[in-house]
Amino acid sequence: MNRVYIIGIGLIGGSIALDIKSKNKQAKIFGIDTDDSHLVKALELNLIDEKASYEDLKNADLVVLAIPVDKAVIELPKVLDAISETTLVIDVGSTKNPVCKAVDNHQMRRNFLATHPIAGTEFSGPKAAVHGLFQKKTNIICEVEKTSFKLQEKALQLFSDLGMRIRYMNPEAHDKHIAYVSHLSHISSFMLGKTVIEKEKNERDIFDMAGSGFESTVRLAKSSPAMWTPIFKQNKENVIETLDEYIANLKQFKSLMESDDFDEIFNEMQSTNHIKDILNGIA
Amino acid sequence: MNRVYIIGIGLIGGSIALDIKSKNKQAKIFGIDTDDSHLVKALELNLIDEKASYEDLKNADLVVLAIPVDKAVIELPKVLDAISETTLVIDVGSTKNPVCKAVDNHQMRRNFLATHPIAGTEFSGPKAAVHGLFQKKTNIICEVEKTSFKLQEKALQLFSDLGMRIRYMNPEAHDKHIAYVSHLSHISSFMLGKTVIEKEKNERDIFDMAGSGFESTVRLAKSSPAMWTPIFKQNKENVIETLDEYIANLKQFKSLMESDDFDEIFNEMQSTNHIKDILNGIA
Repeated sequence: MNRVYIIGIGLIGGSIALDIKSKNKQAKIFGIDTDDSHLVKALELNLIDEKASYEDLKNADLVVLAIPVDKAVIELPKVLDAISETTLVIDVGSTKNPVCKAVDNHQMRRNFLATHPIAGTEFSGPKAAVHGLFQKKTNIICEVEKTSFKLQEKALQLFSDLGMRIRYMNPEAHDKHIAYVSHLSHISSFMLGKTVIEKEKNERDIFDMAGSGFESTVRLAKSSPAMWTPIFKQNKENVIETLDEYIANLKQFKSLMESDDFDEIFNEMQSTNHIKDILNGIA
Repeated sequence: MNRVYIIGIGLIGGSIALDIKSKNKQAKIFGIDTDDSHLVKALELNLIDEKASYEDLKNADLVVLAIPVDKAVIELPKVLDAISETTLVIDVGSTKNPVCKAVDNHQMRRNFLATHPIAGTEFSGPKAAVHGLFQKKTNIICEVEKTSFKLQEKALQLFSDLGMRIRYMNPEAHDKHIAYVSHLSHISSFMLGKTVIEKEKNERDIFDMAGSGFESTVRLAKSSPAMWTPIFKQNKENVIETLDEYIANLKQFKSLMESDDFDEIFNEMQSTNHIKDILNGIA
């Protein structure tokens, strides 16, 4: 796969470009982005070799669609219209059901593989791209059976080159589970940041008293609203369900405090400590 | 201050011991702990040189009280009963109002300095002790005017040796602000962990799909219930206030989602992104 087109040359698209370049010296990376300043930056940082447009996609071996999920459902059908029979197209969005539905009846559906690499940082844009971002991370693949066997193989080789392990899941299950382990974390972090900022008008107090605990809990509140708003919109039902459960747990914790039931508060925390063992599995 | 007694030889007490030892080769560190296995471990790890008891405190230059805050309010008066005129006693608890009140009328009040080093990890016990834990961290000192001038000086020298910067605050203000920047973070993290564990009975799903974002947001849910339950109890009013505001913000976010007001959700996140600049000030 020597002719690689990255649509959306930000944190994820740019990091994939870097890893492909370092693994395959023959690869030529073309960048497509609605934000011309991203393309300029990506050229400067050597993430891409050339700018390109949709008309060139017929020459692509691989197209990586790495744009916000609301844009992906619109652009993916156009990409599939533009490619050749042998082109593999992957997306990397954090929701999978809408993008799969958007091309379910497309005549080129077998050229597309729906993926979600569980990797990233709270930063965005081409200058956030880093080498080795995907090393030892999980890539979730949806509806694998709808992709041609030959292109599945090519995709698996790519993910193996990036150092990823693979899990297969249907798009509905993906969107439901990811709401808990990713989308809810972002909202809890954003709302924690909001609550503290609102209260601490005098920011010196935060600055002086905040420790590493606050810093790690609120880290995701630095994330890009342009990326996350459409994710919450597309995964609305699942995210609302997680919020309902999260709010109910917080209310229960508060009512335990109000009734001075600190034995039960101890128990709640102790049973949640079990998250240690689960997280030890991540690494 | 060569004769140092650490009461509670866990993460904080043990880390202070390590730093004092490496800074002052003359220092002899004595450990007092209700859990004998901690003392055995602390001797093994060279955190302390000897076990000791309250009867020995009359020989102390420095006593560090590093036990859960519910124990601290009971033990501190006994410690002050046992020391000599020249002994400095500091505590390190995450609430300051109850401990200050507990000794407000003690005849040895001037030998005590109330402090809160904003440093720690999610781990606990003597084996969690690390060198340099306090380097460049903030130490909040309360009611400094109630400590004798000579012992204030000794304490400031100690904190300077540990690499800490100092902020002065009254205990009420400390407990109110720390509820926002520390106590609430712990509850939001514990409840996030709880919500996900409850839902994901099949833990493979968490294991496979959780990324570094979830990991950092849920990190504090590994913290010690024995340490945190009494903190929440002592700071009940302030913590309930933060929970009310946090829950209200989450509910509002949810209702914006239900009414499909994603423009406003974008705005909320964008204005909270400002936390970046605040956090850049830390560290």
